[in-house]
Amino acid sequence: MSLPPEFALIARHFRPLAGEGALDLSDDAALLSPPPGLDLVLAADAMVEGVHYLPDDPPETVGRKLLRVNLSDLAAMGAAPLAYLMTTALQRGTPPGWLEGFAAGLAADQREFGLHVLGGDTVATSGAACLSLTILGTVPPGRALRRAGALPGDDLWVSGTIGDGMLGLAVLQGRLPPDDHLARRYRLPEPRLALGAALRGLARAAMDVSDGLIQDLGHLCRAGGLGAVLDLAALPLSPPAAALVGADPSWLPRLATGGDDYELLFAAAPEDAPRILAASRATGTAVARIGHFTPGPAEATVRDHDGRAVTLPRGGWSHF
Amino acid sequence: MSLPPEFALIARHFRPLAGEGALDLSDDAALLSPPPGLDLVLAADAMVEGVHYLPDDPPETVGRKLLRVNLSDLAAMGAAPLAYLMTTALQRGTPPGWLEGFAAGLAADQREFGLHVLGGDTVATSGAACLSLTILGTVPPGRALRRAGALPGDDLWVSGTIGDGMLGLAVLQGRLPPDDHLARRYRLPEPRLALGAALRGLARAAMDVSDGLIQDLGHLCRAGGLGAVLDLAALPLSPPAAALVGADPSWLPRLATGGDDYELLFAAAPEDAPRILAASRATGTAVARIGHFTPGPAEATVRDHDGRAVTLPRGGWSHF
Repeated sequence: MSLPPEFALIARHFRPLAGEGALDLSDDAALLSPPPGLDLVLAADAMVEGVHYLPDDPPETVGRKLLRVNLSDLAAMGAAPLAYLMTTALQRGTPPGWLEGFAAGLAADQREFGLHVLGGDTVATSGAACLSLTILGTVPPGRALRRAGALPGDDLWVSGTIGDGMLGLAVLQGRLPPDDHLARRYRLPEPRLALGAALRGLARAAMDVSDGLIQDLGHLCRAGGLGAVLDLAALPLSPPAAALVGADPSWLPRLATGGDDYELLFAAAPEDAPRILAASRATGTAVARIGHFTPGPAEATVRDHDGRAVTLPRGGWSHF
Repeated sequence: MSLPPEFALIARHFRPLAGEGALDLSDDAALLSPPPGLDLVLAADAMVEGVHYLPDDPPETVGRKLLRVNLSDLAAMGAAPLAYLMTTALQRGTPPGWLEGFAAGLAADQREFGLHVLGGDTVATSGAACLSLTILGTVPPGRALRRAGALPGDDLWVSGTIGDGMLGLAVLQGRLPPDDHLARRYRLPEPRLALGAALRGLARAAMDVSDGLIQDLGHLCRAGGLGAVLDLAALPLSPPAAALVGADPSWLPRLATGGDDYELLFAAAPEDAPRILAASRATGTAVARIGHFTPGPAEATVRDHDGRAVTLPRGGWSHF
């Protein structure tokens, strides 16, 4: 009896990605001896074709993005990558080349970030492809970064640049002129793992920005039970994003509410600013101080270039 | 700033399911201190609307089936349930009552099987709903049941009854007359956790049957590098399945190739048969001896009532 197609497909594309504990993907489950003396950090994110990636995105970047949006959750907790499980619901008739590229992308990022696949499931769907990944990381006990913990007076920091992901989507959809940097930022987020680890014991609160900076800042406020003031003028922008804002300042609040940033948003005591900047240099990850926390109600206030509070129609992305 | 709809939905339906380590589902990831002295067992299974469940299945049973197909993987490894992560891709406009029922089903089975949710993601899809669950269980180190390990001469056993799941699907699709037992067997598989745990150190190899008994037996043969003979006449059948076979014997091989059984298929030394039967009694789980393992090539041979080898067109279910 030869292998039925589903299992041949798993053997060909996914078995080479399997690591310790995966039992070659040929048992009912994986077996993991937890690394001694560490806590596990676990997160799961799904991506849907046409929602989180475009049908004509290269399959390599689809695989890498699936892994990276989950790695970004580990970064937000200050955790180190360990392994992952993945389920893929794909349309029948998905070309073998697509799967090959998807697996090649996963393989590349497994090497880059040091983790491997433990298990999963491959099924068919009649509709949009659904990719789901559960990631496991490790962190020393009691040292994980959390969303709660910011204090009034703390600085508000963000890593990298904001708004490139939403601009990259606009580029790929033809709503903006071609721009390789922006397209890459949409397709290949940079999980800030080194910075996240360096912020352990230094940041008082942290999260990753994935659904729009302002909406996500609202989560940080609610978790900590305090307010925050965000200065739009301090938003770190990539050169193409800055050029857009220079030509039309109304882009600025839109960048602060677009999704797909996958940057770290965090709080730190003002006296720790030099240590934050040192962590930034040590990890090669840009950071910018974009506001501060306040006593007040648990919500984000956004100020424009003149320091006036502005009201935005929409803080960020919601699926429903 | 009030909660955007996606987060309100998570807070309302899924936060009540969260347990230790889930951080109230309000951080970027969950934190788990692994139970000391135990290995973790991890598996992930996805269900797609219209493929693994019917659009008009009650949402309660959809949630419970999602959990149970994963619990069945733990049972196959002899593991005890610990926790799970889940991603749901649902169509916009899914009625709130559907989600309420889905979460109620999960809550019921969390209580029944003793586990809780750690985290996940809720996104929108334009197509068929995709539900993905990653389950974590525990097993004493070195004691997990595995697919490899059967020896020639070992008995081949199966739990419960075979074929009810596929018959239940036929009932629900109107291809067979109404039958509550069969419909329930399709919608609510019984993960054989107690039997799986009792088989540790007793079964030489085990797996769960989900894609069709004969196809899955092929996996057991390949994993162990040995052959198996399956006696169709020994197949354990529920009363409605037996009635169908009585009226039309051609049903029998179809039951052995249908999917959705979620029973345990395992190997044990013939001299351990009394201990297997004792484990069956102790756990209240019926078992039946349905064949034996042979040296020969790594494939399953199926025999009819007269002991003649039969060839079946299709061993079981494949998605592709």
